[in-house]
This record gives sequence, structure tokens and C-alpha cells, in this order.
Amino acid sequence: MSFPVLSVSRRTRRTPFTNLVEAAGVKGYTVYNHMLLPTFFDSVEADYRHLKSNVQVWDVACERQVEIQGPDAAKLVQMLTPRALSRIKIGQCLYTPMVDEEGGMLNDPLTIKLADDRYWVSIADSDLLLWVKGLALGFGLAVQITEPDVSPLAVQGPKADDLAARVFGDAVRNIRFFRSAWLPFQGQDFLVARSGYSKQGGFEIYVEGAEWGEPIWDALFAAGGDLDVRAGCPNLIERTEAALLSYGNDMTREHTPDECGLEKFCDAASACVGHAALQARRADGLGRQIRSLAIDGDPVPTVTQPWPIFGAGKPAGQVTSAAWSPDFQTNVGIGMIDRAHWHAGAAVEIETPAGMRTATIKAGPFI
Amino acid sequence: MSFPVLSVSRRTRRTPFTNLVEAAGVKGYTVYNHMLLPTFFDSVEADYRHLKSNVQVWDVACERQVEIQGPDAAKLVQMLTPRALSRIKIGQCLYTPMVDEEGGMLNDPLTIKLADDRYWVSIADSDLLLWVKGLALGFGLAVQITEPDVSPLAVQGPKADDLAARVFGDAVRNIRFFRSAWLPFQGQDFLVARSGYSKQGGFEIYVEGAEWGEPIWDALFAAGGDLDVRAGCPNLIERTEAALLSYGNDMTREHTPDECGLEKFCDAASACVGHAALQARRADGLGRQIRSLAIDGDPVPTVTQPWPIFGAGKPAGQVTSAAWSPDFQTNVGIGMIDRAHWHAGAAVEIETPAGMRTATIKAGPFI
Repeated sequence: MSFPVLSVSRRTRRTPFTNLVEAAGVKGYTVYNHMLLPTFFDSVEADYRHLKSNVQVWDVACERQVEIQGPDAAKLVQMLTPRALSRIKIGQCLYTPMVDEEGGMLNDPLTIKLADDRYWVSIADSDLLLWVKGLALGFGLAVQITEPDVSPLAVQGPKADDLAARVFGDAVRNIRFFRSAWLPFQGQDFLVARSGYSKQGGFEIYVEGAEWGEPIWDALFAAGGDLDVRAGCPNLIERTEAALLSYGNDMTREHTPDECGLEKFCDAASACVGHAALQARRADGLGRQIRSLAIDGDPVPTVTQPWPIFGAGKPAGQVTSAAWSPDFQTNVGIGMIDRAHWHAGAAVEIETPAGMRTATIKAGPFI
Repeated sequence: MSFPVLSVSRRTRRTPFTNLVEAAGVKGYTVYNHMLLPTFFDSVEADYRHLKSNVQVWDVACERQVEIQGPDAAKLVQMLTPRALSRIKIGQCLYTPMVDEEGGMLNDPLTIKLADDRYWVSIADSDLLLWVKGLALGFGLAVQITEPDVSPLAVQGPKADDLAARVFGDAVRNIRFFRSAWLPFQGQDFLVARSGYSKQGGFEIYVEGAEWGEPIWDALFAAGGDLDVRAGCPNLIERTEAALLSYGNDMTREHTPDECGLEKFCDAASACVGHAALQARRADGLGRQIRSLAIDGDPVPTVTQPWPIFGAGKPAGQVTSAAWSPDFQTNVGIGMIDRAHWHAGAAVEIETPAGMRTATIKAGPFI
């Protein structure tokens, strides 16, 4: 039963863009941070094709912000992540694995420094705000923690620069990867960052003030007719090809950043609450790590529970995301693989709902 | 667009009962604590009629447990809630509003005392575990905080005692309201509590060990054929008639327990992190509070965003849940009403997606 009905309520929050998403013909949603996140418009495969060749506007308002403001803001943000933030500049975005005191992943947000004493943490699907509030209270830190009225709207695809420039001016072209600028729209400045949950390039506009959602969306569509701009959303095929991890799918509190292949974002910030645990676990040696896989055979169904992986007949990990890739003419997958089998080219077997499949570990993402 | 498709993934976790729920013909889901929660089987109205006259088995595995264990467990649990827990007995369940340091509602779980140093907090839809972990770490408490492999299964309806007795023995009949007992099933003891998210009576079985999910479900159905036992789920109509609040729908972090009508569960536990704020806000006087309403006219649509309430033409609150009640032949609702209009019998107007409606404030729940 891949496509049951979603019963909506106030608890599955609508976004400033939901009316427009519906008008654009959204066909599926998931719930992410207690909010509606579109999953496809035409079909996942048609959306994928369009994303790779044109430009899409995505309602990713569910990437809620945890705003941390106050004299202890920088201190607290550094407690959250093993990534050293000492050199982060105002306007810079950093991908920041966030861990608990045991080194388990709690979220993998982008952290944006707005001012020396003010940060936005743009979260994946867990109530990170509660963790941050608990720490702040327990450690007696001088900060205010809020969920501001900020709803990211992504512009993604190879024509994203052209579209964004028509609405926010050519200054967008000068924004470097994971940097941002405050750019004017109808007299109001908005934070525009070169980032997004695809490998096709583009921006995330931090729409501050729900009342701006429809004007900005409408302006993008009015400007992009000749670019074939369409409503889109994070695409399962493209993000699996790119090995863009999904918190709750590919990693959970069970996993360390090292196991998630995020060791380069753990540059030994000793102030992180998970630092000691991560160092100790690292010293014990890594027993499993995330890898991309090519899964043989016909298109596989959606992963709704981890699929066991076997190497030489013995348990060797699990697959947590998979999809048929039209471009690579194979099933692409993401899985957590035991050390003995994680080397590129290793042949494994996967127990899928469609039967046992042979698969090959890849050296890196498909794209 | 009331019924879009839900795109499932590992992140929208299946439960130990999902296979059986699907076999029973589930037609809709919501996502609750990152897990699938059925919303209707036949229709919301047919399910309601059956719930009120027979017995249903509900997959409420999404009521995840936050287990708090260790020397400081009792201390920490008391920090979470304004309800005084000094007299809670082992095996007792207490409805416990949980608040932050500003007195804002974070969750409204049942707290069950399993031992002097071990509690289960059976949560509504927010990652309360992160708050609890943050506090424990920040305050340096000696506790372990986990999400155990425990999946509640509810037996609800007027025939619930008869059905549960056939599977767990007549001892279930002696369990008082909000008390529990460990009762055997195929040689294993399970915690069975007289509780549940309906006013029709019944139990919640804390199924510890996912492998027990299908055997217990199957035993209930095998035993209850002549009772017309059916798969069911929390019912929007019945719970709105009963004014059983839904966290995220009827109350959020914006609201205090007093505003939610939960003042009787705030008996001045000064160790609660929100105690001082709640006392201060109480001293300022209560400006709004939750009330039941009868909304005139034809059946209203589902509430997906709060509906503004007007009294004498001026803003007077918002409706957050509503449904047509076949038994009361009116729309029943739950809303947060300003003081000037919260008295029983007050006439207000509500801006619904189906137009302006007249409504009347009720003295209490419909059932």
C-alpha cells in the first residue's frame, strides 16, 4: 500500500505556499516537522526529468528555523555540533550534524549566522527546538530560542540562476555556494542563500513573514514562463542519486556522523556536548558507514522499512532509500554497510519486498 | 483538498501492527511522532457509530514512550510537569501537561510510574524525548532516557471489558480508571492500563517487543467475533464531542495548561521548570480558555487552519477542531475563546471555509 490517503488537520500544518502548491496540482505530501511537504506533482519520474533540465520552485517551508539569539548564542550553537564554527562568517551557511551527548545524530541542519549573537538553524525532521531549549535551560545560557515566521522557498535546477536573477536581480549570481545575501523584493529584503536539497544548483529564499509567500511565488512564476518553471519538491530519485541524506530515513539517533559519512563536518569542536563520545567511538574504529549502491533488476518499490543487506550470506547492513534511476538505468540506493563489505565494487544481496536482489557498492554518489 | 495522497518512507515509521491495519482495510493515515496513525477504516462516521456501540482495536503505537530511568528519574519527571507527582503509585497513570520554562505546553502525555526509578511518558505528537534529554544533560541528572520498543494497542468501546477479559483474563475488569496491571499473554506479562483516547471506555496494552504485536492483535480478533470487534482508531467526531484535546491541533507551545482548561492538573508542583512562569501568568488573569462549541448549519469541512471566532463583530478566539456529530445533529467544535465570550450560552460567529456560521459556547463537553 504505497499511496494511502493523508488525513490533514491543523497539526499537519499548511505553509504560506500550500494554496499555490494545491493550485499547481500537487499529488502527494509527506509530513515533515509537523508540516506539509509536497512529494510529487506530475510523477516522481517526470518531476525528476524536469528538475534536471529546467527550474522548479519548491515549498520547503517545513525546513523550520530554530532561531537562537542572545549573548550565549554562539556558545550554544557550538555545543550542538561537532563542526567547528569559530570561523563562520555572517551570512555563511554551514551543514552541521547535530548530536546528543552519546554522539547520536539528532538532526542535520544548515546553520546560518545572521549576526554575532543570532543564528538560524534550518532543520530536518525532528523537533530540534526542544533539545536546544532543554540545553539552554539546563546550562543556564542567556539565549532566546524561537521558531520564527520564516518559510524557505527553494529555486532549484540548471536555470535557477536565470530565474532568481529576474526576481532578485543579478546580485544572486554572485552568491557563492553556501553563502547568502539580503536582496530586495518589492521593497523588503530577504535572505537568499545558494543552497538546496538537490545537486542541480539553486537557491533557498528565507521568506520571513507568511504574507510574502504568495507574492514571491507569483513573481517567480510570472518571470519564468519561458524557462518552463514549474512547482516541484525534493525528488526521491535525484536526491538518492546524489546521496543527499534524509534524517529519519538514512540516519537516526542510532548513528554517529562518522557512520553517516559526515566525518569531514566533525572537525573536533571540543565544546560540542557529543565531542567526548564521538572521539571515544572513533577510537573504537568504525564498523559501518553509509554508501551508495546500485541495485540490480526491475524498479524496486519505495523503502518503508530498512531492507536487510547480506554479504556472503551473512548480515551486512541495511538499505534505507532506493529508487529507479532513468538516467543510470539501475536502481540507486543508499545504505548503511558493514566494514567488511563497504569497499567500492563489493557485491552484496538485498532483501527487498520484490525479492532478493544483487547489488554493488559504489565509490561515491551517482551524481 | 481534504484527502491528498501520503507518500510513505522509512521516516513515516510503520508500527508492529501496520500489516494488520492494512489487511483490515485502513483508508487514511496521519503522521504522528514520525509514525503512521490510522484515521479511518470504513468512514469517520461509520467508525464513530461502531465505536459507540461495540469494541475496536486501535494501533496507537505512535504514542511512543519516553522511558526515564535512574536515580534522578522522579526528580526529572517532576521538573517536566506542573502536576504534583509526589503521591503517584507504581502502576498508576497520570495525565500530565508538560511545559517549558515559560509555561507553554510541550506535550500532554500520560505518565506511568513503573518503579521508583522508572517511568514511561506516553507522548502526544512532539519529540518530547529531545526536551527531556536536553534538560537531563544540562542539569546533570543521573538518568537514562530512551525510546523503548513499546507500542500501545488500544481496545476501546462499550464492549472493551468483555473483549479484553477474554484475552487477558477477568483481572482486567478490576483495573480502575488510570490504573494498570501486568497481565499474562502466552506466558509473557504486559502492562494493561484502563485508559484511552475515547470516552467509550477501554484499555491500552503496552506491547513491549514488536514481535508481540501481531499475536496480541490476532488474539483479540479471534476472541471477539461475536462482539463485532473491528479495527479502529481515534475518531475525530467522538473525541471532539468529548473535548479530548489534541496537541498540535487544540493547543501548542503558545498556550498554558490553564488556557487549555487543564488547571486541575497543575496543582502547584514548585519543582516544575515552568512553575514560576505559570504562577505569574495565572496572577495576570486568564484571557482565553478552551471551550466546546456547537456550530450551526450543514456539516463543516475539516479544520486545517484555525477558524477565526468573532463576538459582536470583534475577534474572540479560534476554532481548532470541528466535525459533524450524527448523535447531536450539529457540528461539534473545540476552540480557544476570549474571556468576554467564553461563558456558556454565548453566541459567536465563526469564519469557516464554508462561510460564516453562528455558534454557541457550551458549558462542557458534549459527552
